[in-house]
Amino acid sequence: MNDLISQLGNATFENYVGLDSGFTEMAYQMSAHVLTLGYAVMLAGLFYFILTIKTVAPKYRTSSVLSVVVMVSAFLLLLVQQQNWTGAMVYDAESARYILGDGNDLFNNGYRYLNWLIDVPMLLFQILFVVSLTKSDFGSIRNQFWFSGTAMILTGYIGQYYEVTSPMWFAIWGFISTLFFVHILILMKRVIDEGKEGAPAKAQGYLSKIWYLFLFSWMLYPGAYLMPYLFGGLEPALSEAAVVGRHITYTVADVSSKVIYGILLTLTAQEMSKAEGYDYEKMEKAL
Amino acid sequence: MNDLISQLGNATFENYVGLDSGFTEMAYQMSAHVLTLGYAVMLAGLFYFILTIKTVAPKYRTSSVLSVVVMVSAFLLLLVQQQNWTGAMVYDAESARYILGDGNDLFNNGYRYLNWLIDVPMLLFQILFVVSLTKSDFGSIRNQFWFSGTAMILTGYIGQYYEVTSPMWFAIWGFISTLFFVHILILMKRVIDEGKEGAPAKAQGYLSKIWYLFLFSWMLYPGAYLMPYLFGGLEPALSEAAVVGRHITYTVADVSSKVIYGILLTLTAQEMSKAEGYDYEKMEKAL
Repeated sequence: MNDLISQLGNATFENYVGLDSGFTEMAYQMSAHVLTLGYAVMLAGLFYFILTIKTVAPKYRTSSVLSVVVMVSAFLLLLVQQQNWTGAMVYDAESARYILGDGNDLFNNGYRYLNWLIDVPMLLFQILFVVSLTKSDFGSIRNQFWFSGTAMILTGYIGQYYEVTSPMWFAIWGFISTLFFVHILILMKRVIDEGKEGAPAKAQGYLSKIWYLFLFSWMLYPGAYLMPYLFGGLEPALSEAAVVGRHITYTVADVSSKVIYGILLTLTAQEMSKAEGYDYEKMEKAL
Repeated sequence: MNDLISQLGNATFENYVGLDSGFTEMAYQMSAHVLTLGYAVMLAGLFYFILTIKTVAPKYRTSSVLSVVVMVSAFLLLLVQQQNWTGAMVYDAESARYILGDGNDLFNNGYRYLNWLIDVPMLLFQILFVVSLTKSDFGSIRNQFWFSGTAMILTGYIGQYYEVTSPMWFAIWGFISTLFFVHILILMKRVIDEGKEGAPAKAQGYLSKIWYLFLFSWMLYPGAYLMPYLFGGLEPALSEAAVVGRHITYTVADVSSKVIYGILLTLTAQEMSKAEGYDYEKMEKAL
């Protein structure tokens, strides 16, 4: 493995596997397919959020606009991430495996991280435009979301460069990133609990679902960060299962935390709009 | 054939034909053209569903929105699928045939499968926003559609990796996938039968058409899955007729089950809207 490290600088473990043993066709293609699914869902979601914006009262529409912003940036960055994968590996007929192509770009998950730098603050702000805070101050929560959101991403982004070359730095940066994540979880729980007070019953149901979806989907990201170690213990596992597992985990997390979350917020806002007398279905009929 | 398997890992039979005997220009190009037709129809359908959304009452518009979601994702994934085909094969001047290019990405139908992971639940949900269920519970049917839809796709996706290397696993995964398909057929029949009750006569007519279209178009997919064996019996047929036949079958199935199905649902919703006093044609005239 040390030979490979010297050949590859500080590259991620996807490249080590590619150079060391290569990927089976199934592992390479599953990754390519899953990464393609990711950006296709984002473009489909873009149209959903544009087409449903008028189903909620105007005061809630900022949430749909922020979903649109998230869809556009995620679409582009996940597209580049997919091309990074297919551009890095080539089919080697001799071994019947996909290997890191000579002179090709190395594969790196960094595109995702910089996408999150846009998406994470947007996703966190979004819910603030749907719920009504009863105790907390809007501006204070927004600033804390912004601060901890970007700090979480930037520290994780630095950490991921060390995932093979320095397990120690990988763990330290990952730990700092997790502290910000815990802060975000505490804030989000508070926002959702306050938002439920005084919301119509159906909206309360959606807000409960949003909390569980948030917990589940955002927990997948640290899982994906740690993936090489989840499979390998204290030494990073040079296994294609970990590589494919990471692509799938990131994609499930992206679809849940961006698209399904946004749809649930739209449904919540629809219920709140109705309760306030803005009934989209009835309104259009009268025209 | 075993020599080819060792050179190709677990590749699909399109690659075996490409490497074994290559494709005539006609077979290669027919495939390229049909695959291109597929994604072009999806982009055209996208505009249709956006432009006709206001011809139905607001409560039915979710069906059009879901058609838009299907069109966008299918457009992108079929585009990539087409590029996968043209990127895998190269023209060999010596034999005057198209062969699998050295070092090129292998061809795999997996992009289609992961597209269906988005489209199948959307297509099944869609009809629930048009018909009114008289006996069944909306949430229960929706969840069953979602569960069996994704299970059907995922098991088929795994199965297709074995279509040449292991006829046994190919058959086992295909069989499991078919069980979920049968469940979907039973549910869909129930939804359409309940939807017809109380619907205006013209809408009932469209719903009958939707059932036959659904049966026909969704049955094409298992046919395409089995294509190498339909041509070859118990041994997969390494024939270009099976390859071209599969591209054509998938394309006919995609256009019928996504675009024509969506148009019929729009027509159904238009009739229902009229019966409820939302008459788009008259409305616009009055302006």
